[in-house]
Amino acid sequence: MRIALDGMGGDHAPAVVVEGAARALAQGPADLELVLVGRPEALEPEMERVGLAGERVRLEPAQEVVSMSDSPSKVLRRMRRSSIRVAFDLHKAGEADAVVSAGNSGATMAVGMVVMGRLAEVDRPALASVFPGLAGPTVVIDVGANVDCTPLMLLQFGYMGAVYAERVLGRPNPRVGLLSIGEEGGKGNTVVKQAYEYLKNSHLNFVGNVEGRDLFSGEVQVVVCDGFVGNVCLKLAEGLVATLTRVLRDEVLRTPRHRLGALLLKPGFQNLRQRMDYSNYGGAPLLGINGVAYICHGASSAKAIASAVRMAADSVRGRVTEHLAEGLAQYRGALLGDAHNHHNGGDQQ
Amino acid sequence: MRIALDGMGGDHAPAVVVEGAARALAQGPADLELVLVGRPEALEPEMERVGLAGERVRLEPAQEVVSMSDSPSKVLRRMRRSSIRVAFDLHKAGEADAVVSAGNSGATMAVGMVVMGRLAEVDRPALASVFPGLAGPTVVIDVGANVDCTPLMLLQFGYMGAVYAERVLGRPNPRVGLLSIGEEGGKGNTVVKQAYEYLKNSHLNFVGNVEGRDLFSGEVQVVVCDGFVGNVCLKLAEGLVATLTRVLRDEVLRTPRHRLGALLLKPGFQNLRQRMDYSNYGGAPLLGINGVAYICHGASSAKAIASAVRMAADSVRGRVTEHLAEGLAQYRGALLGDAHNHHNGGDQQ
Repeated sequence: MRIALDGMGGDHAPAVVVEGAARALAQGPADLELVLVGRPEALEPEMERVGLAGERVRLEPAQEVVSMSDSPSKVLRRMRRSSIRVAFDLHKAGEADAVVSAGNSGATMAVGMVVMGRLAEVDRPALASVFPGLAGPTVVIDVGANVDCTPLMLLQFGYMGAVYAERVLGRPNPRVGLLSIGEEGGKGNTVVKQAYEYLKNSHLNFVGNVEGRDLFSGEVQVVVCDGFVGNVCLKLAEGLVATLTRVLRDEVLRTPRHRLGALLLKPGFQNLRQRMDYSNYGGAPLLGINGVAYICHGASSAKAIASAVRMAADSVRGRVTEHLAEGLAQYRGALLGDAHNHHNGGDQQ
Repeated sequence: MRIALDGMGGDHAPAVVVEGAARALAQGPADLELVLVGRPEALEPEMERVGLAGERVRLEPAQEVVSMSDSPSKVLRRMRRSSIRVAFDLHKAGEADAVVSAGNSGATMAVGMVVMGRLAEVDRPALASVFPGLAGPTVVIDVGANVDCTPLMLLQFGYMGAVYAERVLGRPNPRVGLLSIGEEGGKGNTVVKQAYEYLKNSHLNFVGNVEGRDLFSGEVQVVVCDGFVGNVCLKLAEGLVATLTRVLRDEVLRTPRHRLGALLLKPGFQNLRQRMDYSNYGGAPLLGINGVAYICHGASSAKAIASAVRMAADSVRGRVTEHLAEGLAQYRGALLGDAHNHHNGGDQQ
C-alpha cells in the first residue's frame, strides 16, 4: 500500500502536509508507505523537524509548485514537473496506489482525469464529499467537478455515490436522494426534474427528492446534485459552522459566569466538535477516474491530511475503483437502454 | 396602514397566525390595522381565545383553504375563494396595503404575481430572504421564485436586492455579491459567468463573486443567486442550525456537570439564538410585483408572523415598491442598452 502525497499543496504546505504524513504513518496500517512529492529543499527540513524518516517514506523530487491561482489548463499543459502531476504520474505508472493532495483542487481534478483517464461507463468523474450527520455520514456528489450537468450525469453520480457509501462507509444498499427544492417529484429545475425520472427508473435505492436539511439529517446516505450547487452547499456549511463557533465563543468569553459555565461544558463542546468534524472524513474522493485520488481542503490540518491518507488506503483496499466499474457496468442496460435512448433521441436501441 | 393576513396558512394555522396577529397589533405602530382572511368558523374561536378584537382588526371570510400539496396552477385557476386569493384581491382593490402569508409558498407567489402584476422593468419577481450575519443581515435573492434563471434575471435580482437592503434594512450603497464557487470572475456555471459580466458593468456596488460562507459573514449585504440554489441554501442553513442545536442539547443533558455549565451559560445561549434568529426578520418579501407581499415559513412561530407584519408595514411606509420601480427605471439604460442588446442578439440599439 503506497500513497503519493502532494507535499507542496495546501495553505500551510509543506509543514502541515509533512506533519500529516508522520501522523498517517504512526496511525495507519503497518503496510502503509508514503511517497512525498515536491521540492526536496522545502520538504527535507520539515521531514527532519518532525522526524519523518525510514523505509516507509521516500521523497520524489518535483521542482514546480502549483499556486491556488494557476488555471487547470496551464497546470496540465505547462507544468509537467509540478508536484500534482508527478504524483499522478507515479500512480499511473503503478508506483503508487493512490494520490492525496490539498493543493489547487481544480488543477488536481484536471490532472487526475487526464493522467488516469475515466472508467469505461463514466461520462464525467465527480468529486464526492462526506458530510457528518446525526445518524451517520452522508455522501454528497458532486461538490465541484462539474458545474453544468446533464440529467444523465446526475444519474451516474447516484451510482458512484452509492458504490462509495457501500464500499468505503460500509452502508449496504444506501438510500439515495436527489437534492431539490421540494419533496415531490415535480419540484426542481429542468435538469433535476429529468434526473428524477432517470433515478426513479434506476436500480438504485432511490427515495426521491431531498432538501438542503437532509445533508445533515442522516435520512439518506447519498445526495446527488450538480457540482455548482454541491460546492455552494459545502462552503455554506463550513461558513455557518465557523460563524456559529465564533458567535458562541464571543458569548462564552463575555462574563466570568459564562466562562465558568463553558469550563464545565468543555467535554460537551469537544464531543460536539468531534461529531461534526469534517476532518474525520479526510478529503473528497474524485470518483470515476481510473484510479484513487483524494482532494483535501486547502486549509487542511495535519489530522485531515492523515484522515485522507487513511480513507485513500481504505479505498484501495476496498477496491473502490473496481467496484465502481462493476457497479456501473451492472447498470449498463439501464443507462444505455432508457437513459441514453432518451438522452440521444432514442437512436440506440 | 392595513395588512391582509392569511389566517389559514401555515403548519399551525389558524392558532399561531391569530397569536401572531395579536402580537403584531400589541407591538406595532398605532396606525396598524389587520384583516384576517379565512374561514370564520375556524378564526373566530381563536380570536376569542387570545382576545383579538376591536377596531384595528376585522375578519374577511374566505371559505377555501389551500393545502401544502395544492399546485400553484390549481390554486390560481380553481380556488378563487381561497384565503390567499382573497388576501391579494383585497390588496389589489386597495383595501389592504400588503399581504402576509405562511401558507403554500408556491401558490402564494403565483397568486401574488398574477393578481398584483409585475413592475414595469421586472422580467420575473423574486423571493428575497434576510440571513442573519455576524456583521449585519444579508439579503439573499432569489430563494425560490425562479428555478431556471437567465443572466439578465440575475442582474435584475441584484438591483432589487440592493433597493431592499437600502430602503428596508437601512444599508446605503449596499455591497452586492454573486453566489459562485470561487472568487475569480471566471468561476461558476455558464449562467453565473455571464451574469458576472452584466453585474460588473452595472451601476451597483458589485464586489464580484462570493461563496457560500459569505451568506453569514456580513461581507456583503446582497447575495444574488438563482432560486434553486438559494432555496437549497436556505433549507441547508435551517437544517444545519437545527442539527447543531440538537447535538448540543444532547451533550448538555448528558451529565450533571454539563447541565450546571449550561445553566450558567444560559444567557449566552439565549443571546446566540437571538443573534442567529431568522424570525427577527419575519418572512421573505416577494420583490418585483406591483405590491407588497411577505411569505413566511410554514413552521413560523407567532413571533415570526408578527415580525413579517412589521417588515411588511416598514416596506409600505418605506415605499419599497415605488423605489424598486424607480431604481430599476434609473438603470433602464444599462439594462436595455448593454444587457438586452447582448441578450437579444444586439437588435435593440
